This record gives sequence, C-alpha cells and structure tokens, in this order.
Amino acid sequence: MMRTRPLKVALLGCGVVGSEVARIMTTHADDLAARIGAPVELAGVAVRRPSKVREGIDAGLVTTDATALVKRGDIDVVVEVIGGIEPARSLITAAFEHGASVVSANKALLAQDGAALHAAAGEHGKDLYYEAAVAGAIPLIRPLRESLAGDKVNRVLGIVNGTTNFILDKMDSTGAGYQEALDEATALGYAEADPTADVEGFDAAAKAAILAGIAFHTRVRLDDVYREGMTEVTAADFRSAKEMGCTIKLLAICERSEDGASVTARVHPAMIPLTHPLASVRGAYNAVFVESDAAGQLMFYGPGAGGSPTASAVLGDLVAVCRNRLNGATGPGESAYADLTVSPMGEVVTRYHISLDVADKPGVLAQVATVFAEHGVSIDTVRQQGKDGEASLVVVTHRASDASLTGTVEALRKLDTVRGVASIMRVEGE
Amino acid sequence: MMRTRPLKVALLGCGVVGSEVARIMTTHADDLAARIGAPVELAGVAVRRPSKVREGIDAGLVTTDATALVKRGDIDVVVEVIGGIEPARSLITAAFEHGASVVSANKALLAQDGAALHAAAGEHGKDLYYEAAVAGAIPLIRPLRESLAGDKVNRVLGIVNGTTNFILDKMDSTGAGYQEALDEATALGYAEADPTADVEGFDAAAKAAILAGIAFHTRVRLDDVYREGMTEVTAADFRSAKEMGCTIKLLAICERSEDGASVTARVHPAMIPLTHPLASVRGAYNAVFVESDAAGQLMFYGPGAGGSPTASAVLGDLVAVCRNRLNGATGPGESAYADLTVSPMGEVVTRYHISLDVADKPGVLAQVATVFAEHGVSIDTVRQQGKDGEASLVVVTHRASDASLTGTVEALRKLDTVRGVASIMRVEGE
Repeated sequence: MMRTRPLKVALLGCGVVGSEVARIMTTHADDLAARIGAPVELAGVAVRRPSKVREGIDAGLVTTDATALVKRGDIDVVVEVIGGIEPARSLITAAFEHGASVVSANKALLAQDGAALHAAAGEHGKDLYYEAAVAGAIPLIRPLRESLAGDKVNRVLGIVNGTTNFILDKMDSTGAGYQEALDEATALGYAEADPTADVEGFDAAAKAAILAGIAFHTRVRLDDVYREGMTEVTAADFRSAKEMGCTIKLLAICERSEDGASVTARVHPAMIPLTHPLASVRGAYNAVFVESDAAGQLMFYGPGAGGSPTASAVLGDLVAVCRNRLNGATGPGESAYADLTVSPMGEVVTRYHISLDVADKPGVLAQVATVFAEHGVSIDTVRQQGKDGEASLVVVTHRASDASLTGTVEALRKLDTVRGVASIMRVEGE
Repeated sequence: MMRTRPLKVALLGCGVVGSEVARIMTTHADDLAARIGAPVELAGVAVRRPSKVREGIDAGLVTTDATALVKRGDIDVVVEVIGGIEPARSLITAAFEHGASVVSANKALLAQDGAALHAAAGEHGKDLYYEAAVAGAIPLIRPLRESLAGDKVNRVLGIVNGTTNFILDKMDSTGAGYQEALDEATALGYAEADPTADVEGFDAAAKAAILAGIAFHTRVRLDDVYREGMTEVTAADFRSAKEMGCTIKLLAICERSEDGASVTARVHPAMIPLTHPLASVRGAYNAVFVESDAAGQLMFYGPGAGGSPTASAVLGDLVAVCRNRLNGATGPGESAYADLTVSPMGEVVTRYHISLDVADKPGVLAQVATVFAEHGVSIDTVRQQGKDGEASLVVVTHRASDASLTGTVEALRKLDTVRGVASIMRVEGE
C-alpha cells in the first residue's frame, strides 16, 4: 500500500554526515519508499556555504536560511546534523512548532537540553529520534528504549569515543606516549585540530548522560556526569596495566546503586582485564556493554563515528519517524518516570590501582596500610619495588567508595615517607 | 498520561520462558505500566498440566483451553511461548482473528510460516513481533527491521545456537571429541535429551531463514537454507584449525551475492580466524555480525537462550505492541518487497580447507593440483606430510563457488593416489 504524496525532509547541515544522508536518500530512494510505505523527498538543505559544489544535490534545494526552511510548514521531518547548541536548539524547537518531527545526531544538545526538547516534541505530538547521537551506527538508543523496555537495566559500560580509543589502542600496542599517539590520530584524521572535546571526555560525558537517562528512566544532566579525560594516561600506566593483565580504556559507566535507589554516571580512563570483551575493541571502534536483570550481559559493537555509519543511524530513525507519521502515531518519548537520585562521584564503588613513590625504609608499608585501613579501604594486593633508597609501592584495592579512596589518597600525601602519588586508576569490568 | 483500563495479556505456555514472563509482569507491573502508558494485566495462562503449582500465578487464570483463551475477544496481546508448529500456528491465527496482537518466541513456526502469519496479522491490522525467536535476549530483529531500515545489509554472520557453541568451545579448549563434549553439555543442561535440532543445525537454520528474510527484504523459506550439522567435527579438525590460526564455529551465514541480485542462507561448521570477534564467543553465548553498506560492521552479543533472557526479549516486544495498540497503530510488518532470488548452496563463494589421505609417491601433488585447476579452484596453500608410505595433503583454497569445490572433491575421490578425503571445511570471516 504505497502512498504517492512524498514525505518531505529538510536537511540541516551538509557536512560529512549530511552529504551522506542526502546521497543515500537519492541512491536508495526506492528502498526507502518501500520500507516506509511512501516516497521521501529532500525538500531543502540548509548550509552555511551555499557556493560549495555538492554533488548529487539539486542547487535549487540549497539555502542558507535554515530558520525559513524549518518554518515552511510543509516539512514532515527535519534532520539536524549541524551539531552544537545554537542554532540547532532553536531550529529543532521551531520544527516541532511548525509541524515537523525531528531526527538529530546532536549529542551535546541532547545531553544538555534533552528534557526541554522532548517536552516540545510531546507538546506538538511529534517525534524526536537521535540514534546517531550515541555510538554512531551502533543501534543502542533503540535497543535500550525499546528492546529492553520490559527489563531492568543495571549498568551501561562502554567505549563511546573513537578518537580516544584510537589513541589508547596506539599507546597500548606501540608503547607510545600520549602526545605521540595523539599526533598520529590527528595526522590520520581520527582527532580534530582541537581535540579537547574528545580527549578531555566531554564528548563521552554527553553520551553517558543520554545513555543513563534512557537506561534508568531518569533525567541525568550533563553536570551529573563525573568527567576525567585521558590526557594524563602515560606509557608507565600501560606497563602497570599489563602487569595486572589489563589494558586501559576511556570508559563511560552508568550504574544503578546496589540498593537500586540511585544511579551514577561517569567518564574516566580505567584498567580493564584483557579477558573482557571491551579490552579487544581496537582503533576508532566503539562498543557498549549493557547489563540487565533478565537479559544478562549484552554487547553492541561497531563504528562509533564517520559520515556513512552516522548516516545509517540517521536514516534508520528517518524511516521510523516517517512510518510513525503515516500511522498518525509517535514513537516512545522521554521516559523519566523512575526519577531516581543521581548520586555524585563520591558514592561510586569500584576498585583502584595506586602507584606511590615512597622512601625505601622499614615500616613504610605498615604506615601506608594503616592509612588505607583507617579509611575503610581494603587492600587486595601490594607490590613493593626498591631502587636507590627510593621505592615504589603499587596497591590494588578491593571495592571501595570513591569518597573513601579520595580520603585515603589525601592522607597518604601527608605521610613523610610518601614522596608522591604517581598514579591512581580505577579498575573496571571484573 | 496513564490510561486506567489495563491491556489484557494471554500467555500461551508456562515453561521456563512463560513462567519468567509472568513473574516479571507481576513484579515489575509498575515499571511496565509507566513505560507503556497503561497497566498490563495477565488475563489468562494456557498450560498443558493445570495441576502443576505455579508460584505467583493466580490459579484462577490457568486454563488448558488455549483456543478458548485466544478467542475470548477481550485479549489485547497473546504471548505465544509454547513452541513447535501446532497448535501454535492455529492459536496465533485465531488470536489475530479475534482482535489480539501477538508476541512469539517461536523460531520454527516463524521460519516455516512467517509469510502466512504476517499476512494474517496485516489483514486484521495487528502486530506480530518475535525478537525472542532469534538469539534470545540479543536485540537483533529490531535493529535489523528498524535501526538498519535506511541501510543496505550485505551479510549476517553469526553464532545463533548456544548448545552447539558450548560443545565446540569445549572441544576447542579441552581437545575433547564430539561425543564427550555433548555428554558434558547434556549433563549441564545445555543440550536437550534429544539434541538433534541443535547439533544437526535445524535450530540455527530456522533462525538463518528469519534473519535473511528481514535483512534482505526477501522471503527466505526454511528449505532455502543449506544446513549441515556439527556432529562430524572431530578433534583432528580442531588441530587443523589451530594450525591455520583458526577455531571452528557453527555459523549461520546470510549473504547478498556480489552483483546484489541474489542471496544465500546457510548453516554449517566453519573455520574462523582467532582474531575474528566471533572466535572468542564462549560457552552458550550467541553473537551476530551484521555488515551493511553505510554502517559497516556491527556486532551484537549476549545470552542466546534461557528463561530470563528470552523473557526479556518477549517483554520488550510486549511493551512495543502495547504502545502501538494505545496509539491505534501497528509496527513494521513483513517487508519482502525486494523479492531477490534465493540461490542454492552451489552458488555460495567461500574458501575451503581440505585434508586428503594420499599415497606417498612422486607426482601426487601435481595430480591433485591439476584437479583443482581443472575445476577453476585456485589453491592458496598446500601442506604435505609423509608417514610410512602414506601421506596427508592439506589444501587451503582461495575463494571458489561451492559447486566448483564439490566437483573438485568428486574428481579427487576418483584419483588412484587419493586414498580418502579426511575432511572438508569452509573458512569464513576473513
């Protein structure tokens, strides 16, 4: 049953993702029409530089006036792939007001203003879909929102930033330092000229906020996500990790507390056992573990970025939103009914690997062990190594709260016999 | 916006999956209601043995008359977890006729009669969902039907049977033979008393038919799926695989031909490189690779069977179907518009590992190589090993059609110098 009036799509942004969306809409028009039940038509493309030649896109569709495009009134779906907060937010809001549903790939905006955007979509009876905002082509939002809708998710643990995974993988496999690995990532196009959003964990933190919100049916703001970048991970940390049978990954971790009453979300580098499936995620790939009551452990793996993979996710959403429109229905909106407490980092419970530079004399280990005990942090293993009157002490703890660990480290720094805290790294995935 | 009239669910079957569905519907009733937008109520449970005590299920709901239950007329969703062809097929058909949508976990029925069931659902404007029919809790049907709806899937390659993966993993890690590993699987409850459906590949073939149909938007009948079990895989095959840097897995492979005009679906044991992510799928876990034009390579991993994981998939579908019902809409139905040719096994192109027992005398290799050349099968490597006048010859080919390989092997068997073909195994995942 094919409807002949085409659904009209406005594309906002025509960079690496947008141009690929436009290309597939053209080359696979028949497939999309068959899957949706009606043809879809590119009705307008808003760009910043209209003079740039865009192969396969009718020049008559190109405009610099994105606002006029979303307000035309005949647009069924607005696809937003410009990124950033403004003008994306105003354009999406205007789209809902003027009768369109929205497909977005904008993690920063969704993480910051997801609740308001969902409210606007709901008010106007429109869809807001954003599979492409997290982990590129990997179906993750839809499995969490729909496939696991009858289950209770307890943890989401994943590698959600390809740039940093490329850098850490390079450091792991070659022994390179951070700067050297970053330089290679930049040269190969895996890192942007200003890599801050990736290497400082801002990108992963936005994704963690989105994932935690969906997984726990609770609003999780970007500010709720603890964030620690990976710029201070050293070649020495990788050597320590290897001694532990681990590697180091930048992880996004969203967890329900053991009593179920609260949740946490965080992004930081962590040691993870080589036997864990996330340890073997190479290059710029992404992978996300989801643990739930009934399903157990699921893993989703694939390319986390890039024009084509992101376009695949955008187009999957586009098909869904178009089908909903033909049905006169909408898909699942925001689900925040559980409204759980979002706890600060201090309440996170995990294990720690701590390297201390200490004086090489009798009694040091006893002193250090006493500090751990006083703060309620139980020690799993200690390794002591002497060198010329100095020694290093590597302590791996049992599970303890981040607050206890912070207190322990503050007290350790005050000991005369502790010359310095060389590194502290969390140990995950056990 | 919560509707107060509950949606009524009829549960057909109350074994390991059904009892878990009922349990979660009861214990997580509030969550389900919040996610659906209306409460769901267990309105009847059809069982074979009504006298059995079922904890947590009101005895007044239990009936042996499944037909009367699905025909009651007030049922919103029928959940079918009895399995097998009849009476499941008649019950599902009756459910549609009497106004209910259906969630099923029945791979055998879907593989055999999916088209007719989809037609019945469509005729009555009802939903037919069956995420649980393939790979247990792993979201796979929904990602293929929805997330990748804007992409072009070229291959689905996976481990979709936990019993056989447990057995093969055991053979690989312990050097055990097939029977010994099967006995252990049976003792641990991973294999049924009659393991035929699993070890002969019938179960995996049903899943391959379902996956191929969805992936390629083409009807793929169970008879279209080439099927070879894993009962003849030997410890010697594993040793050969190790020499190749491979392990052996029972794979379901659905592929589009290189010219895009036809597809194939098959289930057989195959060597797969240890570096391939599927090689490290342990025990009874399932994992499926999906390769598409835009998304690239995606992998989905998780528990492929068991009461709770399967119940998770059933409940995800239940939530979706209930939402659709409240929306007055239906989800995606069968999509078979592409109607591609389903080619027979002979047209499959892959690589082969062949072990021959040959006479240990000059000229044998030349004879054998000539036979391969005459059939257009190009040899990658040959390894020759002599022992007491006999020798073994291990040939690994480049990519060739299955028909060419079959012809080659027939001709080899006719050579005086070839005493026997010890094993033929396909090599995949490269």
